Amino acid sequence: MSGFTYAAAGVDADVKARLLADLAPAIASTHSAAVAAGVGAFAGAVHLPAVSGGLLLATTDGVGTKTLVARRLGLDAVIGADVVSHCANDLAAHGARPLAFLDYIAMARLDPDLVRALVEAMARACAELGVVLLGGETAEMPGVYCDDAYDVVGTMVGLAPAGGLVTGRAVAPGDRVLGLASSGLHTNGYSLARAVLDEVPGALDEPVDDSGLTVGEALLAPHRCYARALHSLLEAVPVRAMAHITGGGLPGNLVRVLPEGCRARLRRAWPEPPIFGWLQRAGRIPDDEMVGTFNLGVGMAVIVPSDEAASALAHLEATGGPGYEIGEIVEGPRGVEVA
Amino acid sequence: MSGFTYAAAGVDADVKARLLADLAPAIASTHSAAVAAGVGAFAGAVHLPAVSGGLLLATTDGVGTKTLVARRLGLDAVIGADVVSHCANDLAAHGARPLAFLDYIAMARLDPDLVRALVEAMARACAELGVVLLGGETAEMPGVYCDDAYDVVGTMVGLAPAGGLVTGRAVAPGDRVLGLASSGLHTNGYSLARAVLDEVPGALDEPVDDSGLTVGEALLAPHRCYARALHSLLEAVPVRAMAHITGGGLPGNLVRVLPEGCRARLRRAWPEPPIFGWLQRAGRIPDDEMVGTFNLGVGMAVIVPSDEAASALAHLEATGGPGYEIGEIVEGPRGVEVA
Repeated sequence: MSGFTYAAAGVDADVKARLLADLAPAIASTHSAAVAAGVGAFAGAVHLPAVSGGLLLATTDGVGTKTLVARRLGLDAVIGADVVSHCANDLAAHGARPLAFLDYIAMARLDPDLVRALVEAMARACAELGVVLLGGETAEMPGVYCDDAYDVVGTMVGLAPAGGLVTGRAVAPGDRVLGLASSGLHTNGYSLARAVLDEVPGALDEPVDDSGLTVGEALLAPHRCYARALHSLLEAVPVRAMAHITGGGLPGNLVRVLPEGCRARLRRAWPEPPIFGWLQRAGRIPDDEMVGTFNLGVGMAVIVPSDEAASALAHLEATGGPGYEIGEIVEGPRGVEVA
Repeated sequence: MSGFTYAAAGVDADVKARLLADLAPAIASTHSAAVAAGVGAFAGAVHLPAVSGGLLLATTDGVGTKTLVARRLGLDAVIGADVVSHCANDLAAHGARPLAFLDYIAMARLDPDLVRALVEAMARACAELGVVLLGGETAEMPGVYCDDAYDVVGTMVGLAPAGGLVTGRAVAPGDRVLGLASSGLHTNGYSLARAVLDEVPGALDEPVDDSGLTVGEALLAPHRCYARALHSLLEAVPVRAMAHITGGGLPGNLVRVLPEGCRARLRRAWPEPPIFGWLQRAGRIPDDEMVGTFNLGVGMAVIVPSDEAASALAHLEATGGPGYEIGEIVEGPRGVEVA
């Protein structure tokens, strides 16, 4: 297929050819006019828009041990969408538009149905974002991967005008911190969550609250993608900083976009998906470990000037789902307080 | 660090901070003026050269189970350089210049010394190529990775002028196929090689030939990087196609750049590193399995018009090490014959 490169290390050539043929329609559905034809044997290619002084941004992410929970529940497609959303959120946090995505999937013994479920979900997520699925590799690595386990890695490349990057440099005391609702753990904190599951027999089928949702279903909620909402926000409101809340929670991620002398003071009063309360109770996890591990219901934080907070929040709610004002920037040593 | 994003999923925050501080000098050594300052929390950024109608190329690669052999011999740094060379060769095969590299390293329990060895080797290889090490993720994933095993994935992004891509479209009967010498298996065929090792006790310490080199040392020979030699060749000679010889050997890779009606007829008379003969004898591997699995001493194939073959070969030998004329293009069904 033009513009797409696919390798399958350690995999029988016939199996590989059949798998690629199966995946072709999904991959092709992400291919726009930007994809360069006639290339694709060893690397995929896309035409760059004519820009001068533009920036290329790139990020690589894994999905952690959420794969182990997905495997147990047979809900692996979620993982394919998650890795695309994770990467798109990282680029969006700097104001970049995503352009192309590449995937890597590895396991001990090739499971073609699993690879198909993952790549088709990636392709759907890419198509929704207008991102080209440009290449991929699937590796069969007995002795490296545990039986029945797999890893998924994504790399996304995006573009931004040189003056259009959002870096947090302009954050100032008085600014407000907004939070966009997460659907659950997204793709972080699964090692801790699995340690809790190991202590509670049958936990995955237990109800997480009165809604009928099980703990397993709550743990497999998809990683929300905020990219479209944030791109739209950037055109409407002067955004000072954005932080994708992944491993390390709000303290570990929000601090990365704060300048010296700026401190985020957050009040933990926003609604939290019930899975967090369940995990804390079942695992007797101290508050500070909860705060430093999980996103606790905030998947993306956005810092705006105080007089823009109301319109930013209205804009985000209209385009990206529930949002809350979660705190403010005060003068003080660079850091994040959650009270 | 500006322009560099680094995540360490599942890793203690202090360990992560110490590791990133340790890696900072190596990473910084790859950072040119192209790296955008002030960004780097969630994605790395580089300035694009002012191009119009340019192409962006990208490729993702793993290194397969060579990691298991490297681990046994304590020669893991080789793997860090290998993944960079592998990616650079893929981009070079289409005529693209490499711009930025991102890595992913994962294992069951974080081994900071291993990560340091890998990333420092990646950074050296990137610096030699003039490529920015733009981002990375290190993941600790018990239950996914076998104890003491690890995986390494690299993604490289490069640029090419729209008219400057090498795709194989112009390949025609009469063209010559040149081969650039490999150092050994590079990063493909290790699952088969390890199956042979499992049958021969003490094989890693056995001499591979009379030179004093052991089988283990021969298996850990670095993946050769042909990118500089090929970029230089493209300026000197009209190159019709290039193929990076990885999994699937010459037949599986050369065919990818052949147009319909063109058949590569190769004579297996080039010098082969002794590890291939050792593996074939020790594992009683049939010829066609050898040909379809290993590069057999040719790490990169280059197709040029017949009247350019001599000057291309001279140019390659002067810049990229030993090369040979290994065959020619004939009319016939698209495919590769090795006799």
